[in-house]
Amino acid sequence: MITISLLGAGVLSQHLYYALLENSQCELVQWYARKPDQIAAFRETVTTTDRIEDLLPADIYILAISDDAISSFSNSLPVLKGLLVHTSGAINMHQLPKRFRRGVFYPLQTFSADRPLCFSEIPICIEAENKEDLTKLKQLAQILGCKTYKMSSTSRSHIHLAAVFVNNFVNQLYRIGHEITESQGVNFDILKPLITETAAKVQEQSPYRSQTGPAMRSDIKSIKNHLKLLEDNPSKQELYQLLTKSIAKTHGKKL
Amino acid sequence: MITISLLGAGVLSQHLYYALLENSQCELVQWYARKPDQIAAFRETVTTTDRIEDLLPADIYILAISDDAISSFSNSLPVLKGLLVHTSGAINMHQLPKRFRRGVFYPLQTFSADRPLCFSEIPICIEAENKEDLTKLKQLAQILGCKTYKMSSTSRSHIHLAAVFVNNFVNQLYRIGHEITESQGVNFDILKPLITETAAKVQEQSPYRSQTGPAMRSDIKSIKNHLKLLEDNPSKQELYQLLTKSIAKTHGKKL
Repeated sequence: MITISLLGAGVLSQHLYYALLENSQCELVQWYARKPDQIAAFRETVTTTDRIEDLLPADIYILAISDDAISSFSNSLPVLKGLLVHTSGAINMHQLPKRFRRGVFYPLQTFSADRPLCFSEIPICIEAENKEDLTKLKQLAQILGCKTYKMSSTSRSHIHLAAVFVNNFVNQLYRIGHEITESQGVNFDILKPLITETAAKVQEQSPYRSQTGPAMRSDIKSIKNHLKLLEDNPSKQELYQLLTKSIAKTHGKKL
Repeated sequence: MITISLLGAGVLSQHLYYALLENSQCELVQWYARKPDQIAAFRETVTTTDRIEDLLPADIYILAISDDAISSFSNSLPVLKGLLVHTSGAINMHQLPKRFRRGVFYPLQTFSADRPLCFSEIPICIEAENKEDLTKLKQLAQILGCKTYKMSSTSRSHIHLAAVFVNNFVNQLYRIGHEITESQGVNFDILKPLITETAAKVQEQSPYRSQTGPAMRSDIKSIKNHLKLLEDNPSKQELYQLLTKSIAKTHGKKL
């Protein structure tokens, strides 16, 4: 039985709360939030507090707060016996104070307040200062059903960057797709099966092998036509050109 | 009962073949391929030919060949009584010869030879010169279980452009993600649940509402860190900057 204390009241905390609550192999001993109202609704199922002085003993303290607050908040904490981990992709483990046993437990996923997620499908990047703590984090991940990836803070920052490409940037391309369909009075629904299939395809074969389209075929005529359709929109045009070049470069195609 | 003749032996033709074969409300009367070997394997279930002179009567002739070949191939066809449609997103309906009843039946999806697809989930962009033919195309789509979107050749070219953004360009961002994970010795698998969830999210809420990440938070520190991680890769850096700007512009954020 691993005992857990949850620090922070954001979206990730709530997902962790539900994942931990259901689990018989770990116990959520306490949930801390700066503003008690934020977690008042959960008071019947978990001990809550808004005072860091009242933190109960736990094997692992999971700090799920915004990147900017990690350093100052963790510095304000009293002495804790357990392992203190943050959950950020971008922050170095060493931003946690030296006086703690330190680690990282970074779930690589996008969390929304209103979309339930199957926590067991989330890959967890873990880091710790010693083998024992690393084993503990691995155990916690396994209890939650998650696959772990042990990596340094530097590697994690690169993986976080990759996540920005396949999540935020991909989503912005969806947005551009939405703008184009809207400009033609066509419902965005028309693109949804293609979006689903594009994501499904790379679950089974590499993005390299999955690529198709005008840049891949060196189809200069189609590319010119598309650039013409975008001539009133220089920023979309620039993106089109850069992504087309990127595909051509990856696949050794001439344009 | 609608009778169909399939012209062309590519990946789309094969998907259409399977969709038509299973269906009791339409009949695939013939399949034409320039090289008979390409469809030899299907000879037991459908009449095949490699001679345009031998084309049998059909209600709809579906031309599923490469964009470049549509005009010249259709000009070479003998007189046909049925409706001739091409299946391209980019080609104007009027590239089909005037002497035919002309139309377009463009399935908006990415087709792979080795990935079976549920055809009924594919949106079909349809176009024809008169109501009767449009109704016929709508009927065919409905028989296959597909939703139809009636649109002009100009609108279709814009929708095709949107498809390039959400398919080819998105896939290239997956590729960049793959390159980054590989550079850290981490398996691409780590990004797959995030890719799936990002695509799943916009099935239910708009890409606008789904956006998160550094650009969305005006998190200049993270953006600078990411640009630094990419300093040895100017083309990825340029893409990062452009996509970050694009998100900031969409959401009225200052960077």
